[in-house]
Amino acid sequence: MAHNKVNYGDETPIAAFATTPGNSALTLIRCSGKGSIELAALVFSPSDLKKALGNTIIHGWIKTDEKIDEVLISVFRAPKSYTGEDSIDICCHGGPVAGKAVMDVLKNAGFREALAGEFTFRAFMNGKIDLTRCEAVMELVSAKTETGRCRAVSRLCGSLEKEINEIKQLLVQVLASAEIYLDYSEDEISADTEEIEGKLPGQDIAAAVLSKLKMLSASWQLERIYQEGVTVVIAGRPNAGKSSLFNSLLKEDRSIVTEIAGTTRDWIEAWVSIEGIPIRLVDTAGLRETSDAVEIIGVERSLKLLQEAEIIIYLIDGKNGLTNEDTDFINKNNTDVRHIFIWNKCDLAPLPQQFPVIGINPICVSAKTGAGFTALYLAITSAILDQTNTVSLDLSVSARLGTLRQKNLVDNACAALEETLALSEQGEPLDIITPLIRDAVNSLGEITGEVSTADILEEMFSRFCVGK
Amino acid sequence: MAHNKVNYGDETPIAAFATTPGNSALTLIRCSGKGSIELAALVFSPSDLKKALGNTIIHGWIKTDEKIDEVLISVFRAPKSYTGEDSIDICCHGGPVAGKAVMDVLKNAGFREALAGEFTFRAFMNGKIDLTRCEAVMELVSAKTETGRCRAVSRLCGSLEKEINEIKQLLVQVLASAEIYLDYSEDEISADTEEIEGKLPGQDIAAAVLSKLKMLSASWQLERIYQEGVTVVIAGRPNAGKSSLFNSLLKEDRSIVTEIAGTTRDWIEAWVSIEGIPIRLVDTAGLRETSDAVEIIGVERSLKLLQEAEIIIYLIDGKNGLTNEDTDFINKNNTDVRHIFIWNKCDLAPLPQQFPVIGINPICVSAKTGAGFTALYLAITSAILDQTNTVSLDLSVSARLGTLRQKNLVDNACAALEETLALSEQGEPLDIITPLIRDAVNSLGEITGEVSTADILEEMFSRFCVGK
Repeated sequence: MAHNKVNYGDETPIAAFATTPGNSALTLIRCSGKGSIELAALVFSPSDLKKALGNTIIHGWIKTDEKIDEVLISVFRAPKSYTGEDSIDICCHGGPVAGKAVMDVLKNAGFREALAGEFTFRAFMNGKIDLTRCEAVMELVSAKTETGRCRAVSRLCGSLEKEINEIKQLLVQVLASAEIYLDYSEDEISADTEEIEGKLPGQDIAAAVLSKLKMLSASWQLERIYQEGVTVVIAGRPNAGKSSLFNSLLKEDRSIVTEIAGTTRDWIEAWVSIEGIPIRLVDTAGLRETSDAVEIIGVERSLKLLQEAEIIIYLIDGKNGLTNEDTDFINKNNTDVRHIFIWNKCDLAPLPQQFPVIGINPICVSAKTGAGFTALYLAITSAILDQTNTVSLDLSVSARLGTLRQKNLVDNACAALEETLALSEQGEPLDIITPLIRDAVNSLGEITGEVSTADILEEMFSRFCVGK
Repeated sequence: MAHNKVNYGDETPIAAFATTPGNSALTLIRCSGKGSIELAALVFSPSDLKKALGNTIIHGWIKTDEKIDEVLISVFRAPKSYTGEDSIDICCHGGPVAGKAVMDVLKNAGFREALAGEFTFRAFMNGKIDLTRCEAVMELVSAKTETGRCRAVSRLCGSLEKEINEIKQLLVQVLASAEIYLDYSEDEISADTEEIEGKLPGQDIAAAVLSKLKMLSASWQLERIYQEGVTVVIAGRPNAGKSSLFNSLLKEDRSIVTEIAGTTRDWIEAWVSIEGIPIRLVDTAGLRETSDAVEIIGVERSLKLLQEAEIIIYLIDGKNGLTNEDTDFINKNNTDVRHIFIWNKCDLAPLPQQFPVIGINPICVSAKTGAGFTALYLAITSAILDQTNTVSLDLSVSARLGTLRQKNLVDNACAALEETLALSEQGEPLDIITPLIRDAVNSLGEITGEVSTADILEEMFSRFCVGK
């Protein structure tokens, strides 16, 4: 992100579109900051906006010399607002023009365009929510499936914040005991140091905390998949039925399905949900030798997509049977676990009793009738779990991590605790061990934002969307 | 529109997305109807929603057995709401999932999905706004340019309603005088009938009203263009620079520009604003003989687009010079006023002093450098005005029509008044003339909705967008 010298927490009045301008009935513009209500009042009629109570709604016009738009303004008074500052939500008419005209008036009046995540940043700075909840807000907005929403809501309700605070509390006890011993060992009871040297008081607790943190760290693997999804590329020779499969999985016509080989010159993609996992489904150009310049670009792009794919569904045209190109592809990729081989058009031609390529047992599917789709879904989810070393689609833990940032900090804490325990085993003195425990406590504090620096925060919030 | 047997004005609680679900911070769901606040309270926590005052905002959770989304609810109490009914706006988290989950909960609770335009329909039925303002709401939401917004706002403020009511008032006076004469002529002063027979009292007023209505009717031609826009198709041989021109007019890269002839297999389109007129700009496949099956489809589509186009920008590749295909095209379409001929790449090759096709003076443009664009814009707006017989881009009238419905009703009134005046000239008796004046008055009443039928209203509102 290019940092211009605008400060996230400068309290100045900011404004941003909170909804996507487009073919809609309404557009919502969110404003916040010191003096934001008074500033908006300058371009609003009637004049009673300035005196409006918090949590009330005023009807009127955004106007300059001329009337710009008829709006509803929701007024929030600090600290009873999302950001903890004086805020207003302006509900304008929808469509591409009205909201933009209102935004231009607001900017002329003195509102600055909000930076990405600036509203939530301010909410954090004003103590309205901790960092795990801030991140859960963005998770919720970005959720691609119902499963994603449920998991984000759980963190928005504080499940992770609670877990982290509980774990940290345990560690703080260990730290406190160790520090007391340190104090004593230096002062009065220095004679006893031999006794306690190399024995971390609360070593069992530290070990239990480490085990909890490792569970937490492992939870990210699946959470990441639910959030970011998996790229599944459909490949195969021209006319193998790739677009038909793509469309059946989408349950709507998005890609052109014709009988002309090479119609899909470029790739086409869409998101679908399979067992709650967001799948970025990509339909590629057919893989074949060609001299057409545009089609060559298409085939090259397809090969690149195959390299990047997490799962590759390779379609064999059952009606035409296995070609040499199919056999070559299968032999080449046989051991690559990313591949799922499909015998398509099984409604027209059944799978041969003895499949010609040894060790391969393709799934029989008809993209046209939908036969074999349950087996296909199962194969996709199994392939995903195989790759993540996750045994099942759920872990019975009370809290799960929601971001890579959280994962990295949990891993930092784990590393510090592992070293703590190792040094303790080796009988190292407490004054060497104690700083490691403090590191672990600080890493956990960073997760909720108890410990934080401006730089890290700005970097983190800059990845949020504008209007949040 | 397929009419299911749901009644627009049945007062039942309805719900609809008022913003486009998508990559946004927030999603707004609008609900209205008798008991809508109580119904929403069933799926909302805390429980104080039911007791909330009008024009206030409550914070809480939409929930069933589980928490669905953290929301703000704006409460409006009848009659102080957009619809005039009890209403709420639910401000959910954005993204593709959260709003949908909330909507599902609302539907399960008993809210019906709102029909297109149903909120505004109810606003009209409850006497909140007249029909011209209802239509202005939809105009504003659909406005494609700033000019479109200004004109919609003028009607939303009642400029047209006022004009129509004033004109109607004049006609009602004429009608009243005529009816008084009728009464008298039949009763007491029947001896004087010869005197007044064939003379419409207030004939001058009727003539003045007719002239005003004709101006009003004429205003629609330009209003329609500002609303609906004009389709401008870019045509020419492959590599003439069509995609480059398209992109320059868009000022952003939307279409692929490469050196391979026939890259644009299909057409691509985008909206741009030229002098406040919304232009649907279409970039077509190159026009050339080809044997490629997919490209043939492209060329056929291009020819069809040319037929439908209101303006055709034909590009000559200045660098290559005029080809026989160009000359053929120009000679064939020379007299078709829809065509604007462009000598492109003028930065590389100037227009020949003597252009080979007599009577044609192409505009010199460089799609690459932007040279000649001012002349091109002027040529486009002139061609539009030529086609509409409009002299300038503005008419100095106080009110303008906003919909074809209004135009048709104004024309009905004009026709009735023209017949009125003709019959009056011919000396026809008042009892033949008076019903025509009443027809004209009724037509004007239909414009504002003073006179209306359920069928006409439902047909009209069904063309609105959902959520309005």
